Amino acid sequence: MTKIKIGIIGVGRIGKLHAGHIARHPQAELHIVSDVMISDSLKEWAAELGIPHVSADYRDVLQDPEVQAVYICSSTHTHVPLIEEAAKAGKHIFCEKPISMDYLQTQQALETVKEYGVLLQTGFNRRFDHNFKRVRDCVLEGKIGDPHLIKITSRDPAPPPAEYIKVSGGLFMDMAIHDFDMARFVANSEVVEVYAQGAVLVDPVIGELGDIDTAITTLKFANGALGVIDNSRQAVYGYDQRVEVFGSKGCIQIANDHPNTAEISTKDAVYRDNPKYFFLERYEQAYAEETLAFLHAIVNGTKVPVDGNDAFQAERIAAAAKRSLLEGRPVKLEEI
Amino acid sequence: MTKIKIGIIGVGRIGKLHAGHIARHPQAELHIVSDVMISDSLKEWAAELGIPHVSADYRDVLQDPEVQAVYICSSTHTHVPLIEEAAKAGKHIFCEKPISMDYLQTQQALETVKEYGVLLQTGFNRRFDHNFKRVRDCVLEGKIGDPHLIKITSRDPAPPPAEYIKVSGGLFMDMAIHDFDMARFVANSEVVEVYAQGAVLVDPVIGELGDIDTAITTLKFANGALGVIDNSRQAVYGYDQRVEVFGSKGCIQIANDHPNTAEISTKDAVYRDNPKYFFLERYEQAYAEETLAFLHAIVNGTKVPVDGNDAFQAERIAAAAKRSLLEGRPVKLEEI
Amino acid sequence: MTKIKIGIIGVGRIGKLHAGHIARHPQAELHIVSDVMISDSLKEWAAELGIPHVSADYRDVLQDPEVQAVYICSSTHTHVPLIEEAAKAGKHIFCEKPISMDYLQTQQALETVKEYGVLLQTGFNRRFDHNFKRVRDCVLEGKIGDPHLIKITSRDPAPPPAEYIKVSGGLFMDMAIHDFDMARFVANSEVVEVYAQGAVLVDPVIGELGDIDTAITTLKFANGALGVIDNSRQAVYGYDQRVEVFGSKGCIQIANDHPNTAEISTKDAVYRDNPKYFFLERYEQAYAEETLAFLHAIVNGTKVPVDGNDAFQAERIAAAAKRSLLEGRPVKLEEI
Amino acid sequence: MTKIKIGIIGVGRIGKLHAGHIARHPQAELHIVSDVMISDSLKEWAAELGIPHVSADYRDVLQDPEVQAVYICSSTHTHVPLIEEAAKAGKHIFCEKPISMDYLQTQQALETVKEYGVLLQTGFNRRFDHNFKRVRDCVLEGKIGDPHLIKITSRDPAPPPAEYIKVSGGLFMDMAIHDFDMARFVANSEVVEVYAQGAVLVDPVIGELGDIDTAITTLKFANGALGVIDNSRQAVYGYDQRVEVFGSKGCIQIANDHPNTAEISTKDAVYRDNPKYFFLERYEQAYAEETLAFLHAIVNGTKVPVDGNDAFQAERIAAAAKRSLLEGRPVKLEEI
Repeated sequence: MTKIKIGIIGVGRIGKLHAGHIARHPQAELHIVSDVMISDSLKEWAAELGIPHVSADYRDVLQDPEVQAVYICSSTHTHVPLIEEAAKAGKHIFCEKPISMDYLQTQQALETVKEYGVLLQTGFNRRFDHNFKRVRDCVLEGKIGDPHLIKITSRDPAPPPAEYIKVSGGLFMDMAIHDFDMARFVANSEVVEVYAQGAVLVDPVIGELGDIDTAITTLKFANGALGVIDNSRQAVYGYDQRVEVFGSKGCIQIANDHPNTAEISTKDAVYRDNPKYFFLERYEQAYAEETLAFLHAIVNGTKVPVDGNDAFQAERIAAAAKRSLLEGRPVKLEEI
Repeated sequence: MTKIKIGIIGVGRIGKLHAGHIARHPQAELHIVSDVMISDSLKEWAAELGIPHVSADYRDVLQDPEVQAVYICSSTHTHVPLIEEAAKAGKHIFCEKPISMDYLQTQQALETVKEYGVLLQTGFNRRFDHNFKRVRDCVLEGKIGDPHLIKITSRDPAPPPAEYIKVSGGLFMDMAIHDFDMARFVANSEVVEVYAQGAVLVDPVIGELGDIDTAITTLKFANGALGVIDNSRQAVYGYDQRVEVFGSKGCIQIANDHPNTAEISTKDAVYRDNPKYFFLERYEQAYAEETLAFLHAIVNGTKVPVDGNDAFQAERIAAAAKRSLLEGRPVKLEEI
Repeated sequence: MTKIKIGIIGVGRIGKLHAGHIARHPQAELHIVSDVMISDSLKEWAAELGIPHVSADYRDVLQDPEVQAVYICSSTHTHVPLIEEAAKAGKHIFCEKPISMDYLQTQQALETVKEYGVLLQTGFNRRFDHNFKRVRDCVLEGKIGDPHLIKITSRDPAPPPAEYIKVSGGLFMDMAIHDFDMARFVANSEVVEVYAQGAVLVDPVIGELGDIDTAITTLKFANGALGVIDNSRQAVYGYDQRVEVFGSKGCIQIANDHPNTAEISTKDAVYRDNPKYFFLERYEQAYAEETLAFLHAIVNGTKVPVDGNDAFQAERIAAAAKRSLLEGRPVKLEEI
Repeated sequence: MTKIKIGIIGVGRIGKLHAGHIARHPQAELHIVSDVMISDSLKEWAAELGIPHVSADYRDVLQDPEVQAVYICSSTHTHVPLIEEAAKAGKHIFCEKPISMDYLQTQQALETVKEYGVLLQTGFNRRFDHNFKRVRDCVLEGKIGDPHLIKITSRDPAPPPAEYIKVSGGLFMDMAIHDFDMARFVANSEVVEVYAQGAVLVDPVIGELGDIDTAITTLKFANGALGVIDNSRQAVYGYDQRVEVFGSKGCIQIANDHPNTAEISTKDAVYRDNPKYFFLERYEQAYAEETLAFLHAIVNGTKVPVDGNDAFQAERIAAAAKRSLLEGRPVKLEEI
């Protein structure tokens, strides 16, 4: 069996994470990685994983005839040109979210992808999480009937540094984008209207940079359901990732994952350990499975489970949320 | 020790509920009840509870010189005139929620109450519930820091009959009014802006009557916090009454009360019995305690814990929610 | 409707508790109470509850022709003679547990009860608890199939004073007696063999008084099931009262009751309030219902739900446990 | 960096499981596996994992000079001779539990291991489980004070086939041996006395083969604590693996792991998915970590975390339990 040769463009934290999963896959082989910064520790890391080629030039990845698929894990502003080049080079593409901060550019990139007939999967890893998948399955099986209310809680344990906030695209594009995708995923319907409230309650610096750190975003779906997402950049007790879907026949809700099930009773209280700290701990299994799914699609010539349109739609919702916050009014998706 | 003599105007389900708690109180005595419909079964019920006087005319209650306090449990449209008459007669007043569907009338009634110096407590029973009180205490003690997000879930097990819907004042005034009060109670701050989304997803008849059965209402508070309430007229699994307050130092959330703690594991699933069915089961203890608090205030000459202003503010929020739904835009409370 | 007139012999904590429930019952009337110690505060308490007669002589209770039923809430050593006198006087009897520390005496008292045809209910209040009842119902309905394993956890929040330990009859007779009854109740089968391990781990004074404070008692049931009870005189986090029945088709377990459902997440941990502190808080509803059941049986001429034999069997198991601990070997009930 | 070369003797289900973890380890290399049955599918499996040598003769593993460590995953009766041969060949040893069904033979094997100065780790994988480790840590940190009661629930989802039962060594040696180790691990003390009750309630065939399928085993520990283990060969709802340690300052208990945290509310009940089905799902992480620990000890020349004495002690407890069941009396470990 020949293995699929993979390249990765951008091997920061998330690129390395994917590399680990690819390295472990029996049908894939990590052939080359590129990064704008080639440090000694990066070289060591690549050697330990047995990656034969390391380059400072992403073109070495895209032009390598042996490479069948690329992971684009570089900065967001590079995604669109890289997708277009990769598509033209006939490589299948896994691209981190968001594809772009401008959904029109995303649309353009998707057209190129279509034209060249390559696969494009986007990094909405949460769709592969055991908890969220259970919600989606439950809804699709009709166990809770028609969805009426979708509720998503998504809070990070700590805000990113100011440097990151500046280039992040803002809370909606950077953080809530996952929740917008999750809303579509579990409601099994498109969002048609958005109203967003935002506040700066965690750190005034975030406000000075023109962003918010706390938000409640309400949604209307094409199937008539209503939805709400609450976000915070700082939940001191750890990553808070919950979903609830309420419908005509019942309700499903998922709780956080904890590092263990221990419950300790003392004279003061009954307590348990905080939820898993952040996305690396919480979504370890989901990251593994999104790569399995991507490689499965390549090997079997099937569709990817999260495609470019999924990225495009989430970006549109983020754009609508931004406009809603700015203009203080509900915004219809058709305005976007 | 002389007991406080109490009268009740309107002895339907809720009037009878209060009667039971008054009858059991060592410092109170149920002296007279009135109702527009005096049936034999009502007379029997009164005899069993040892209530000496039963009348078809509420004036017999208000004009009885022995009566020190009245419970107004008749239809909402009678509340304002009854409060005014009762105040003028020097009776302390316990009035069910809402005081009126028109907050301006409520305001007028409150002025009369003030003028005559009687006590007025309103029937926001949930403030006395062991779960909700725990949330409030936790917030006031600063355990979760400054509140950032307030989330309230409030779903009834089944919609009321169409006849009731017609005169109910609508979902916001009839049902969500409790949640508007709860929002102020646990946020410990006033609401300054409301945006309401509504839908008819449970029963089209409700829509034909001009009401909604499903709603998501978002709130902004004076202290900067954001809030969201989700309502449904029909949760098939029973009364769903939860609150979550998320703040700078943590989060408190309360789950539903169940009739027992049993967890049953079978080959199919692990299951437990549904939550307590509806308000009579769920708020039994809260109803008992609101009467304790009212009688305590009378006996000790202290303030009541839920006053007329609390009713007035909740009615204003309901009015803002109605307008928001109608006009499809966020509505500031100062507009009301 | 004439009310059943009730007398109480012994109005300490538990006698007063029953008094409250009788006073509230629409078909019962508290006619007389007696106690060896008549203090002013006892008289005041009786006056507040509207009890017309208070006596220092229990014979005033038993000889009162108006009294139909008596609650025997005095010290354990008085139970047997009082039951016999009460039976001879034709009074129905509610007797606190245990009837006697010598099951042979209990047997004798039961014969007198039988001879005079009065009802005798014993104070195994936990059978009326919403959680334990749910377990029993689940077993009887066959939901978990044939019972294989019965597990009971029963731990007090704090040991009683040394003075009480001395006369208590020991951990098995005083405390675990409830659990022996619960074992029979949820297994729906008789105990045939007992093996008890005991230790003094909480307080050496308890050991000096010849008692133990920690125990694990294993049981064999007539239906083949095995059982285990663990006891401690001191659970610093509060009253710990749990049961699990595991069977051929599944398992049911009940958790403790807590004063509220709040879960508080902080940077250190997720915690909730300790379980209800002790039996007065935990079994409030069960105490109310056992009196309802006793009065129901009197009014309707039906059997009581917990009879003298239930007391007798639990006492036999306690005696077997004591012997097992003493002799360091399993003891068959037929030896007792 | 040279990798540690590993051989595996016996590549059934558990041998393959270990192989997977070794293959993934950056410092280890799977050099050779042997099995008495070399099928085509076994060869394919080895090829996929990149294992260069496959043999039908275990001596090829033990005599290979490149092999530094061996995993003994063959039938229990082969463990002792293989350990002795491996030790003499200077190989570090990972041996599955139990080492032997005769603790005297185990003792002899351990002496050989000691003589030749190799490492021996035994396969008590549960010590590496996130839940059980949390219990142990909590006890060692003194969070619950001195342990008074140790409770272990250990139930399999379904009994093994009759063929396996015959050679298994019986419930105590085959299944409860893990729990005996767990008892020592979480109590942090040695067992000094055992009393075992057993029953055949799941399948009469098991009884015909001279074994039991249901057991309650009580323990006394050197530190004064009491313990109880309940076992069943068939929990229809899945693998039930719980531990509770109750002490002078509190209590820690762990619940089962479930495949997700979803809670589904319907008109009938609130339910969640059953626990993870069996040991492969439940202890996936624990198996990975025990190999990490073994390799860590080899690389760093440190002690293994679960040594031969741990196997020996658990086997002694199993022997005491067997004798207790046979003789119907508590058995002191010093008798063994």
